[in-house]
Amino acid sequence: MKMAEEKPARKKLENLGAEMLDEIAKDESPHFETMLRSKSNVLYDEAIGCLRLGDKKEIRTFVNVAQAKKFMQTVAVAAKCKKFLDEDAHTSIRGLFYQLKYSLGEEMDEELFAEQEESNPLIEDLEAALKLKREDLNLNTDRKGVVAGSLVLLDKFGGERTEIDCAKQGRSGWMVPSDVDNGMDFISVDAEWVLVVEKDALWQRLNEDKFWKKENCVLITPKGQASRGCRRLIRKLANKKLPVIVFTDNDAWGWYIYWTIKTGSMNLAYLGNDVATPEARFIGMTMQDLKDYDFLNKLTIKAKDVDVKRAEELLSYPWIAMHKPWVAELKSVIKSKRKIEQDALQGPRLSFVGDYLREKMAKKKFLP
Amino acid sequence: MKMAEEKPARKKLENLGAEMLDEIAKDESPHFETMLRSKSNVLYDEAIGCLRLGDKKEIRTFVNVAQAKKFMQTVAVAAKCKKFLDEDAHTSIRGLFYQLKYSLGEEMDEELFAEQEESNPLIEDLEAALKLKREDLNLNTDRKGVVAGSLVLLDKFGGERTEIDCAKQGRSGWMVPSDVDNGMDFISVDAEWVLVVEKDALWQRLNEDKFWKKENCVLITPKGQASRGCRRLIRKLANKKLPVIVFTDNDAWGWYIYWTIKTGSMNLAYLGNDVATPEARFIGMTMQDLKDYDFLNKLTIKAKDVDVKRAEELLSYPWIAMHKPWVAELKSVIKSKRKIEQDALQGPRLSFVGDYLREKMAKKKFLP
Repeated sequence: MKMAEEKPARKKLENLGAEMLDEIAKDESPHFETMLRSKSNVLYDEAIGCLRLGDKKEIRTFVNVAQAKKFMQTVAVAAKCKKFLDEDAHTSIRGLFYQLKYSLGEEMDEELFAEQEESNPLIEDLEAALKLKREDLNLNTDRKGVVAGSLVLLDKFGGERTEIDCAKQGRSGWMVPSDVDNGMDFISVDAEWVLVVEKDALWQRLNEDKFWKKENCVLITPKGQASRGCRRLIRKLANKKLPVIVFTDNDAWGWYIYWTIKTGSMNLAYLGNDVATPEARFIGMTMQDLKDYDFLNKLTIKAKDVDVKRAEELLSYPWIAMHKPWVAELKSVIKSKRKIEQDALQGPRLSFVGDYLREKMAKKKFLP
Repeated sequence: MKMAEEKPARKKLENLGAEMLDEIAKDESPHFETMLRSKSNVLYDEAIGCLRLGDKKEIRTFVNVAQAKKFMQTVAVAAKCKKFLDEDAHTSIRGLFYQLKYSLGEEMDEELFAEQEESNPLIEDLEAALKLKREDLNLNTDRKGVVAGSLVLLDKFGGERTEIDCAKQGRSGWMVPSDVDNGMDFISVDAEWVLVVEKDALWQRLNEDKFWKKENCVLITPKGQASRGCRRLIRKLANKKLPVIVFTDNDAWGWYIYWTIKTGSMNLAYLGNDVATPEARFIGMTMQDLKDYDFLNKLTIKAKDVDVKRAEELLSYPWIAMHKPWVAELKSVIKSKRKIEQDALQGPRLSFVGDYLREKMAKKKFLP
């Protein structure tokens, strides 16, 4: 077995176990404390500009009939993650579930883990308790998203070091991995800003036109909703002081993508500003575009009920309602019941999408 | 404007237009002939081992009230594709739809294309009529799938030549593009076989264990159902005489992935053996595995109704019913109502999945 690098996650897991052993030695019931992840403990942190958890705690102890099973399950998950770190091997949360099922299933009267729904929330509990990400526990998450631009990374993986030059990926681009922190460093970031494009089809269009080269940006498509890895990569590029500009349809899905990148999401509030980029700005599509680009008026499509409902919901969030241009934008969609897809910019000619972006960048026509 | 390479697709589109002009010159009604793509004209070609279209034709002419609109729409789609080829620029079928809507919307009394549902089938008609793929018409399709292995490609794209070494892609792998034919060549294929793994999570596991390096295979995950590009890449690797082995769950979704790779699908029957790999073999998961790997018995999960229904459906297809081992396999699932996920192989230890594959490869334990 190859010796794993010393990782903070391993130390944290060891401490967690040591504390429990201490409690047992003192004839106390071992306990596990984490942050309460329910909606009642999610708040918008105005100072940072993202969603995060409040101060409420959740405690489970072994000598409590209602908590004993969940306590044991939590310890089992922690022990497995420690093992994965020791082995320097990664798996998915599904792989973790099967390891738990395999090793615990026959030793206990009742199956400790019958369904994965039981192990998933415990991973989030651990992340929140240890203040780290599941990626730090060698758990892979869904990968999605593609990158091109003047950005070079070093990928230390499986005992090898690979240099990834995002300017030399041809038509494909570099696929954003699950973990962009552990064993993954920026070698150089020569690009000056980041453009996040909702749809892969538009990314391919802009990549073919060498938009990222001409405008010196990192061109990213999350391919719809951004994966954890993609959100984390955007955060890391923002840490390098690169402005982040987001380009989506003006509909329920597009807004969701933008606000998740910017403020994080309710579900991942426990990760706070590790995966949020409050500095992000929204370039389009907007209802104002209909005034500035007349041809778009014949290319709008009817907003669906879900779009209108979502716009109303967003207006009720204080961190959105505080931005007047967003209030106007959302009200305009609700009133007109029309939406515009980013694909529509290809109407007059395929390369127009780049011109649209250039013009709006030059005039700094962003929503906050 | 950059001069485009001479492409057969351009010539075919020109001929299509020239024939119509000829007809008009002769005072005949211009017509468009394609292969009928409805189910009634899909057949299984036993000699090749894949689904393809039969001999039935579909003809639409201009001077026919019922066909005039569709005829004009078809010509409009063909003209746009010719333009994209002339401009040497690609777009998606959504981009094509907006180009049609933009340039035709105001010139006609009635909108020629109100919804994309109207333009999509016409693209397929064109593909079938011209005997080429939409990728040859500069139309991008959804990209999905990731590759690692001793395989080097040359990507000629946007006026640049990029060498892609699939052995040097770190944790990410090389993302399979929409078009693996035009401007895309194999430089070297040192791998000896192809392993197609349904789930990305398993691909990541095998990639971390350097399975593709140790076993000298091209490791591909389609990430679920294989995209057109991914199916085409597998076909091209099979053309290089590399055996293709497919590894999925034994359930409705897994079988669908396998049979689509092997025989093609009803929907894409018009592409015939361009995207089918009849040589493909199935390595698992199988019900036999429960006898060979005892631990799997406690890791099975209940088959869903859709799995059982799908197994019954597959038994009714002659090209599946002709394989006795498949009949036994499907009947066993129907009877036991159990299924096994490929993830379950990580139960005893994370690296077991590689050992399972090695053992079955050595013993040639495949389903046809």
